[in-house]
Amino acid sequence: MRSHYCGDVNKSHVGQEVTLAGWVNRSRDLGGVIFLDLRDREGLIQVVYDPDMPEVFKVASSLRAEFCVQVKGIVRARPESQVNSQMRTGEIEVLGTELTIINAADPLPLSLDNYQNNSEEQRLKYRYLDLRRPEMTQRLMFRAQVTSAVRRYMDTHGFLDIETPILTKATPEGARDYLVPSRTYKGEFFALPQSPQLFKQLLMMSGFDRYYQIVKCFRDEDLRADRQPEFTQIDIETSFLSSAQVREITEDMVRGLFQELLNVDLGKFPVMTWQEAMRRFGSDKPDLRNPLELVDIADLVKDVEFAVFKGPANDAEGRVVTIRVPGGAVMSRKQIDDYGKYISVFGAKGLAWMKVNDLAAGLEGIQSPILKFLNEDVVNALLARTEAQSGDILLFGADNATVVAEAMGALRLKLGQDFNLLQGEWRPLWVIDFPMFEKVDGGWHAVHHPFTAPSSVTAEELAANPGAAVSDAYDMVLNGVELGGGSVRIHKQKMQSAVFNILGIAEEEAQEKFGFLLEALRYGTPPHAGLAFGLDRMVMLMTGASSIRDVMAFPKTTTAACPLTNAPSPANPQQLAELGINVVVKNSEKAE
Amino acid sequence: MRSHYCGDVNKSHVGQEVTLAGWVNRSRDLGGVIFLDLRDREGLIQVVYDPDMPEVFKVASSLRAEFCVQVKGIVRARPESQVNSQMRTGEIEVLGTELTIINAADPLPLSLDNYQNNSEEQRLKYRYLDLRRPEMTQRLMFRAQVTSAVRRYMDTHGFLDIETPILTKATPEGARDYLVPSRTYKGEFFALPQSPQLFKQLLMMSGFDRYYQIVKCFRDEDLRADRQPEFTQIDIETSFLSSAQVREITEDMVRGLFQELLNVDLGKFPVMTWQEAMRRFGSDKPDLRNPLELVDIADLVKDVEFAVFKGPANDAEGRVVTIRVPGGAVMSRKQIDDYGKYISVFGAKGLAWMKVNDLAAGLEGIQSPILKFLNEDVVNALLARTEAQSGDILLFGADNATVVAEAMGALRLKLGQDFNLLQGEWRPLWVIDFPMFEKVDGGWHAVHHPFTAPSSVTAEELAANPGAAVSDAYDMVLNGVELGGGSVRIHKQKMQSAVFNILGIAEEEAQEKFGFLLEALRYGTPPHAGLAFGLDRMVMLMTGASSIRDVMAFPKTTTAACPLTNAPSPANPQQLAELGINVVVKNSEKAE
Repeated sequence: MRSHYCGDVNKSHVGQEVTLAGWVNRSRDLGGVIFLDLRDREGLIQVVYDPDMPEVFKVASSLRAEFCVQVKGIVRARPESQVNSQMRTGEIEVLGTELTIINAADPLPLSLDNYQNNSEEQRLKYRYLDLRRPEMTQRLMFRAQVTSAVRRYMDTHGFLDIETPILTKATPEGARDYLVPSRTYKGEFFALPQSPQLFKQLLMMSGFDRYYQIVKCFRDEDLRADRQPEFTQIDIETSFLSSAQVREITEDMVRGLFQELLNVDLGKFPVMTWQEAMRRFGSDKPDLRNPLELVDIADLVKDVEFAVFKGPANDAEGRVVTIRVPGGAVMSRKQIDDYGKYISVFGAKGLAWMKVNDLAAGLEGIQSPILKFLNEDVVNALLARTEAQSGDILLFGADNATVVAEAMGALRLKLGQDFNLLQGEWRPLWVIDFPMFEKVDGGWHAVHHPFTAPSSVTAEELAANPGAAVSDAYDMVLNGVELGGGSVRIHKQKMQSAVFNILGIAEEEAQEKFGFLLEALRYGTPPHAGLAFGLDRMVMLMTGASSIRDVMAFPKTTTAACPLTNAPSPANPQQLAELGINVVVKNSEKAE
Repeated sequence: MRSHYCGDVNKSHVGQEVTLAGWVNRSRDLGGVIFLDLRDREGLIQVVYDPDMPEVFKVASSLRAEFCVQVKGIVRARPESQVNSQMRTGEIEVLGTELTIINAADPLPLSLDNYQNNSEEQRLKYRYLDLRRPEMTQRLMFRAQVTSAVRRYMDTHGFLDIETPILTKATPEGARDYLVPSRTYKGEFFALPQSPQLFKQLLMMSGFDRYYQIVKCFRDEDLRADRQPEFTQIDIETSFLSSAQVREITEDMVRGLFQELLNVDLGKFPVMTWQEAMRRFGSDKPDLRNPLELVDIADLVKDVEFAVFKGPANDAEGRVVTIRVPGGAVMSRKQIDDYGKYISVFGAKGLAWMKVNDLAAGLEGIQSPILKFLNEDVVNALLARTEAQSGDILLFGADNATVVAEAMGALRLKLGQDFNLLQGEWRPLWVIDFPMFEKVDGGWHAVHHPFTAPSSVTAEELAANPGAAVSDAYDMVLNGVELGGGSVRIHKQKMQSAVFNILGIAEEEAQEKFGFLLEALRYGTPPHAGLAFGLDRMVMLMTGASSIRDVMAFPKTTTAACPLTNAPSPANPQQLAELGINVVVKNSEKAE
């Protein structure tokens, strides 16, 4: 039914007859000649119908938007004046000789041209139409190119694509599981996996050595803009490799992706410790395009009279930092106040500032509401350490270290955007040496997950001082977004038990939840390490989409519903009876 | 930690130092020298420890089965007398110079050598150990090669890998759905897809033109040997292609798979109508390796005195056939009786037979309990039509056409095996022109699914005579196994409504279940057609495994449980409260 895709016809076909099939993107009668823009997934092409072929002209006159048609015609070069350089096929057009309406279309329930006018709900309800927009088509085609390139890389590097179960047991990632009632074991439930973590570790125990899978994962969480109930992971695990080797392979893969698909050379990724990232950027996923940094000044201000600085500066858990914004002295009081409000959501109680109006004028050239608390030596030391220039502003954060990192880290990002400071298009890095544990509600919590190995300590040393332990984990970060993360896993039963202990997982619970893993560790488990990338997020970044919903074919709404199929929906009573379950809270009571 | 995989070391490495990592397959002290068979996923290699290196010898002496170790040593050629041609690395061995025990192993809870002694339950509980058996490792590695080759074919032929949802709406395939309770819409449920059928059709409506996905599908059915709650489909859909074109592409893909991975040329697949398959083989998935055929003889016996033949021979819905078994006259009465019992489960009421002891002797040479009912002309006609030879037996089936096809089709397969008649290793074919509908309990039922298009009839003609309609569907069959099936889909709303009507799906139900599909058909749907292969079954066939469980990493038991993780398991009350459901029938009451 077709000799070429629309987008593939070019000057080399001039004079040839082509058969095309696609959709009416637009059809206009201009001065008695009909110009049809025909669309398929590869692009648009202009088809022209002359009135001197009255039969086909008549059919062409009846075309409306989104009719599915078959076109036959002769390719010809456009007159010089009508060449459209914006269009892949803009040098040619097709003189239509035959036209078949394959399937007519009713007027569309949403606009494809001005899609911004469509609500998200509408776009999802008529997803099959929304996906006809070339932008959406191209994003999903790009996504297919990404998965294809990832698979090619993995295949040629000895990674085996092995499928792990979707119907499985509750996993330990910590988010809420989706449950699936069992019919054969009534009253019991499968869980959909939050990741194939334990299965990929078991595959290493089986000796498969290198595993990968592009796999759906599930979390029943309240959704945000970049979360979906089901999402896709590029899941990787290896045996006998160090964390540095895993980073090398996966970095090479990502570098290859960007080179092949975007013609971008990401270069060698810098490696930064978690400590350094938190210190300089207040974030474990710093956007390196942003040149602003947090500069620690506790040592400079620990004797000043200003309690807001002095307190945290003398507190082991406190922190005092400043961010120098080049040219920031132009900020109005209102702007500064707004930034203060902005960081208050992170717990910051205020935003002290210091404008460097004229560096040469000494204290006279400095404008700051806190100037009265600081003597000249302190001010000079601040200016020296931040290398402040006339016209800059210093913004201060002082609180406990967590609040300072979160608030000033967020402020740094906002300032970078507001002052157009971002440099370079793509800035990847590795963040390594995360803490093993963080204190949450007085108990220890795994920063990565409970299967992550510590860097060079014994089980006894770990138990003695969990807070000091550094994990052999790594995150790949690009432009402030975590593309993926992973770790070396624990491969000794003693260490795994020690970690469960520290996390307060009782022996019984550990046996019930992870007994099979603990047992598996007894039979010659190899050292192993892996990583998982968030595919949706990676494609979103690479395509410049603003939401992961725009790089998924059939996403859910933020309330985890599908307006297209109307899922979820009530089950019939017989199905529920077979499963041995009952609905006790009905839809009408949905409170969330 | 490793310079080579064990299985990759060969004569070209003689004299080199290698570093290997893997598992102790076996370790023996033979006359004061330790022979270690080291295993990794690529194979086995022999490592030799001499007592004149006492330190490493001592470590080697402590090895037990399945220890995970790192080995350093020098590759050397084996003496001629010790070359093992059964082993990929049988020409060389490694003289061990260093040995590190990475992880010890407790005695295994199941035997890897005599795995037949392990129960299925044990094998699944310790799946990570069962998968260490080279046979299992190789099957999963082969499976990865299959998916890789399929993807490469699809990618190079313009098919886009597009992911469809796992959390979706109940689908119309007819099996029982797995349900997933929604937390945000309490009392409502998602269903796990039995196939991405409707989504792939929607993708064609979006204009993606060529789609594929290797995707998990789910059916909550009582399991048989070759069924699993979750299974994997190679799912394909195309626009603007005819059924013949879809067959050509997918046949080319499968032919390529067999060529590349098994070095087998499947040749061009014959195409057979469903009518012919049922007539000659009593099956819509005939095993063409079996030369036996059903031969219709109703016209020859419609006037005989034998009511068992005469009745069906004169009934429009009846059928009388015979199977000639070359050399089958050697069958004992007991054997024949056993075959009779074998086919009784299909509803056959008996098995008439006729031995051709001596063709030249006329009726004297024929032995048959029904000979008295047949005159010489009938007997001669039977012998002529079946081309019977001396030493053959004719076995007869007479009943309604369905019983005859099922009983004699099954008997044909059994005879083929019992008499070692199978010819050729691989015999693929296409079966096409299925009936659109079959009568089930007095109503019409779709033979493929409700979205399959009829071959060249209008909606009106279809409605007028559903029983006569032939569908534009096709199954790929290999050695009597359905590898995959598909069809041209309905792309006009009028036809789709007509089919729903015939199937007795009320307007309201059609709207509720498929309203979005019916609506989508209004907006310029292209003609489209597709196919789905059962990946598990395909890999099972290609590897010669006897169950799909043997080509899946982590399958479930026949009661849909996972002895490894102990899934399914009880949910905690808080989770159920969040979902608004209650368990009303407990595990202890499980009756099935």
